[in-house]
Amino acid sequence: MQQENCLFCKIVAGQIPAKIVFQDEDVLAFEDIHPQAPQHILLIPRQHIAASMADLTAADAPILAKIFTTAQQIAHERGIDEKGYRFVTNVGKYSEQSVFQLHFHLLGGAPLGLFGTPTSK
Amino acid sequence: MQQENCLFCKIVAGQIPAKIVFQDEDVLAFEDIHPQAPQHILLIPRQHIAASMADLTAADAPILAKIFTTAQQIAHERGIDEKGYRFVTNVGKYSEQSVFQLHFHLLGGAPLGLFGTPTSK
Repeated sequence: MQQENCLFCKIVAGQIPAKIVFQDEDVLAFEDIHPQAPQHILLIPRQHIAASMADLTAADAPILAKIFTTAQQIAHERGIDEKGYRFVTNVGKYSEQSVFQLHFHLLGGAPLGLFGTPTSK
Repeated sequence: MQQENCLFCKIVAGQIPAKIVFQDEDVLAFEDIHPQAPQHILLIPRQHIAASMADLTAADAPILAKIFTTAQQIAHERGIDEKGYRFVTNVGKYSEQSVFQLHFHLLGGAPLGLFGTPTSK
């Protein structure tokens, strides 16, 4: 199912160009246009199943695992698996989620630093 | 299966104290001792199934989905679901993975900023 005005659905449909890294019947991966690391790739389910991880259910287990195993493959192909990578998904304003289709960020290629805002709590 | 010298296995076994947030037969969640956000909770599978996400396979789909749905619940209980949260897993040196049992970071409670190292690429 494609949702109107969803940027990533338009990339899936080929209506907006993207640097595609990988695609099959389940998953699409493409380069982030605002990279936060030398390698910064987005992975999405081809179907718009959720606005974010907040909407996932147990029924989404297979596609979730597929996204993780696809990220492993891409990390290997990009040569970032040996030194390490980060896999991130954001939900809502505080995390700076900007497109409301579930997506994961694969980052690597350099030391990545922290992943939140340090606090003395 | 518990692995020797695995910090998180020792927390699961009750041999090392932790501020437990949630536990059931599949998942354990506890507060990070070096928080990077006002709320920073770690979620692990109770069984040491993988050193990181790099070792996950399609067979791990159910526990993976369970970790995500548990994170949703904790985000709701901690009151961080409305403003948003981040869910992160790290692999290897560049991402600063420090314990080699698969774990996920749930962060929220304040604007979280970036999640990699900005690059002009």
